[in-house]
Amino acid sequence: MRLIGLDPGLRRTGWGVIDAASGRLSHVANGAVVSDADAPLAERLMQIHQGVIEVIRLWRPVAAAVEETFVNKNPASTLKLGQARGVVMLAPALEGLPVAEYSPLKIKQSVVGGGHASKEQVQAMVRVLMPGVTLNGADAADALAVAICHAHHAQSLARWTAGTKAGTGATPGHRA
Amino acid sequence: MRLIGLDPGLRRTGWGVIDAASGRLSHVANGAVVSDADAPLAERLMQIHQGVIEVIRLWRPVAAAVEETFVNKNPASTLKLGQARGVVMLAPALEGLPVAEYSPLKIKQSVVGGGHASKEQVQAMVRVLMPGVTLNGADAADALAVAICHAHHAQSLARWTAGTKAGTGATPGHRA
Repeated sequence: MRLIGLDPGLRRTGWGVIDAASGRLSHVANGAVVSDADAPLAERLMQIHQGVIEVIRLWRPVAAAVEETFVNKNPASTLKLGQARGVVMLAPALEGLPVAEYSPLKIKQSVVGGGHASKEQVQAMVRVLMPGVTLNGADAADALAVAICHAHHAQSLARWTAGTKAGTGATPGHRA
Repeated sequence: MRLIGLDPGLRRTGWGVIDAASGRLSHVANGAVVSDADAPLAERLMQIHQGVIEVIRLWRPVAAAVEETFVNKNPASTLKLGQARGVVMLAPALEGLPVAEYSPLKIKQSVVGGGHASKEQVQAMVRVLMPGVTLNGADAADALAVAICHAHHAQSLARWTAGTKAGTGATPGHRA
């Protein structure tokens, strides 16, 4: 199952695509869609939206995940991020992909194993989980972390469903 | 010149279409695009975005305007509004329309003549400016107010440009 993780931002939106198969994760591609800071807002939103659409059409993931955002900054920043987040989430939805959301806590727990990990620890763990990966910036690393989290939850769900059906307590790890 | 005004909201997005010709404004249509509150966020954003696209394709405005948002509520509401605003502004941009933004102050000044007007005064003035109009809710009325503001500014701009070029004080409408 190919998954895309997205880390929305008006200036840079990170994306990361991974394959999750039989409990193994492998890196496919990662990067960032950048908008022109001098362009009017509607134009920038369009650049981000169309950039994400292009990435989806190129790599053909079957599901998408985005980090839930909790913002403590000023309202203007929150509004800006919200606008970017809206057009980013819209892209996979328009392409027919289910879009999941995960809290920062869940993503940290899923990638590092604890909710109190720093951003740097998350990125280090992304490198461990995806050996040899070249991370195209912090946004792309965050996007990969979201994708990894989604793979874990999607697999837990599959396991739960399978376990319920099969009546076993087997717990295949994601790299088992 | 046909204009669309938009008042974004995740639950309801108001829209109002007017014709501005030779300094005269006339009402074309107004309404609201509603999203399903029980649907996941990505689905709701898609409903709003596609609803606005449909309205634009039906009424074929040549320019769009949106109110600038200043939010004092909690960050969660601001984020929600931002997400709606992003996918709403994206719709006219993707359809090739220029998208203007006006502050609430400018809209009030433009419609009522003063910046300290209440929402009710703005709506009452929209009724005066568009005799016989049936307003499909407060969001639609606000959207018409944005469209009226845009018409005033577009005409001022046209007048200014025409006056400068011709070296006269004549005030041709934008279709003169």
